[in-house]
Amino acid sequence: MKIQPYLRKAQFYETDQMGIIHHSNYIRWFEEARVDFMEQTGYGYRQTVDSGYDLVLLSVSCEYKSMVRFSDTVRIQARITELSPLRMTVDYTVTDADTGKLRATGHTKHCCFDSRAQRPASLKKAQPELYALFESIAVENDGQ
Amino acid sequence: MKIQPYLRKAQFYETDQMGIIHHSNYIRWFEEARVDFMEQTGYGYRQTVDSGYDLVLLSVSCEYKSMVRFSDTVRIQARITELSPLRMTVDYTVTDADTGKLRATGHTKHCCFDSRAQRPASLKKAQPELYALFESIAVENDGQ
Amino acid sequence: MKIQPYLRKAQFYETDQMGIIHHSNYIRWFEEARVDFMEQTGYGYRQTVDSGYDLVLLSVSCEYKSMVRFSDTVRIQARITELSPLRMTVDYTVTDADTGKLRATGHTKHCCFDSRAQRPASLKKAQPELYALFESIAVENDGQ
Amino acid sequence: MKIQPYLRKAQFYETDQMGIIHHSNYIRWFEEARVDFMEQTGYGYRQTVDSGYDLVLLSVSCEYKSMVRFSDTVRIQARITELSPLRMTVDYTVTDADTGKLRATGHTKHCCFDSRAQRPASLKKAQPELYALFESIAVENDGQ
Repeated sequence: MKIQPYLRKAQFYETDQMGIIHHSNYIRWFEEARVDFMEQTGYGYRQTVDSGYDLVLLSVSCEYKSMVRFSDTVRIQARITELSPLRMTVDYTVTDADTGKLRATGHTKHCCFDSRAQRPASLKKAQPELYALFESIAVENDGQ
Repeated sequence: MKIQPYLRKAQFYETDQMGIIHHSNYIRWFEEARVDFMEQTGYGYRQTVDSGYDLVLLSVSCEYKSMVRFSDTVRIQARITELSPLRMTVDYTVTDADTGKLRATGHTKHCCFDSRAQRPASLKKAQPELYALFESIAVENDGQ
Repeated sequence: MKIQPYLRKAQFYETDQMGIIHHSNYIRWFEEARVDFMEQTGYGYRQTVDSGYDLVLLSVSCEYKSMVRFSDTVRIQARITELSPLRMTVDYTVTDADTGKLRATGHTKHCCFDSRAQRPASLKKAQPELYALFESIAVENDGQ
Repeated sequence: MKIQPYLRKAQFYETDQMGIIHHSNYIRWFEEARVDFMEQTGYGYRQTVDSGYDLVLLSVSCEYKSMVRFSDTVRIQARITELSPLRMTVDYTVTDADTGKLRATGHTKHCCFDSRAQRPASLKKAQPELYALFESIAVENDGQ
């Protein structure tokens, strides 16, 4: 399974008075790209709610390389770069959709959370099929 | 009971590339002022959750009179201008805290909602003390 | 010219703790639909900047009819409903893209602003071709 | 000079459907704390604009330790932890203002940017007094 990049048009309300997209929006774009990634795997929002397990966010980081402006379209490629039964890291590469110029890189770290028991869980035990799928995606999309 | 105005400093991330506060933020400031208003009445968020009734938003409007810029402080005066057992209108006047210059006016309309039964309710029947308080506030703060 | 509706997927970060899309986001969606509308006319952002005239926002209103939830897609139809040399009103109808159920209606009022002279201008005089286009669109999309 | 922590009340519109403050808002709170920090030094927004130099954001990161909920007040302590003529790192510690419980930690990295020449500059050369002040603050607030 090849994960397709997520395309996002930068909006006017996302600009700031420097005339660029405010840095906080990239964190929201990462979430959009992650949601899209999950939908491509077949484990989208509805499936997640039904399963009773969430992928909780532990940390986020973003490095800003060049500026995005209103009405630019960015291409966000999300990749699973670390996967263990308890933890997962997703990396993001944001480029301009027209020129390919690098705009930002970032990552988010997640753990699996049992929403009924309200405690961390092993993703490998809780959702073995999803875990196996993540493993295969991580390998196939490596070095993309 | 005299409701005190709500003071809010405009933030950098609320600006847009015109160099002013983006209009969508005023709608959020109205909510902040409304929450503050409710806390002043003694019926803040915790009390609302415990009561099982919400003040659901039916509509919002805002007229922009002059621009707010980053690091300006605005003063928002919320007032109950219409009150019936089923409906309530709250008006907002946004002025510059330093100069008093009018920045915006607006209003929100609300109904009382029974969050357990998941249907509209009479505020007067559901929360008679709050309703009586709203009536007295509406009169006292009239023409302020 | 038939203006196509704007499709928008509701995002997780737009939800609030009531489990629905927070009302302030609809105001941002109106802006997205308006930007898309302008691009369909051929007078998008780049053309606007080059022209030296802006369509400044004077007021906004929204009536909430039913709730939008995370991962729903909404269809937003923008229409010019009032047009004079100095003023323009744009109406918005937000429906669920799958079911057609009405979610919200709203409108924004605008005037033409000469960004070099920093004062209001007549749209009809400043941009006669755009004004004529708006007139024809307002008629063609009437009663849509 | 002792930098005072920045207090911020979490708003309803900052919640998400998990019933907690959405993680993207912490990045905005860091900015608010940084702006407040700069104002405490006497080099606030107006001074920065007049100087012709900006502190541009290069990267941001945040680790989420425990959840913040609507109407909680957080205390954000910003500290300069790395300072060189060309680069600066600001660390943030977010705690609950009532209980002192740790909510999040994070940092932002910045460089000095000459907004007229549109290129990076040495903060030490461009604004020697501010640089000296940052140096003394970094020492005084160390281990706080």
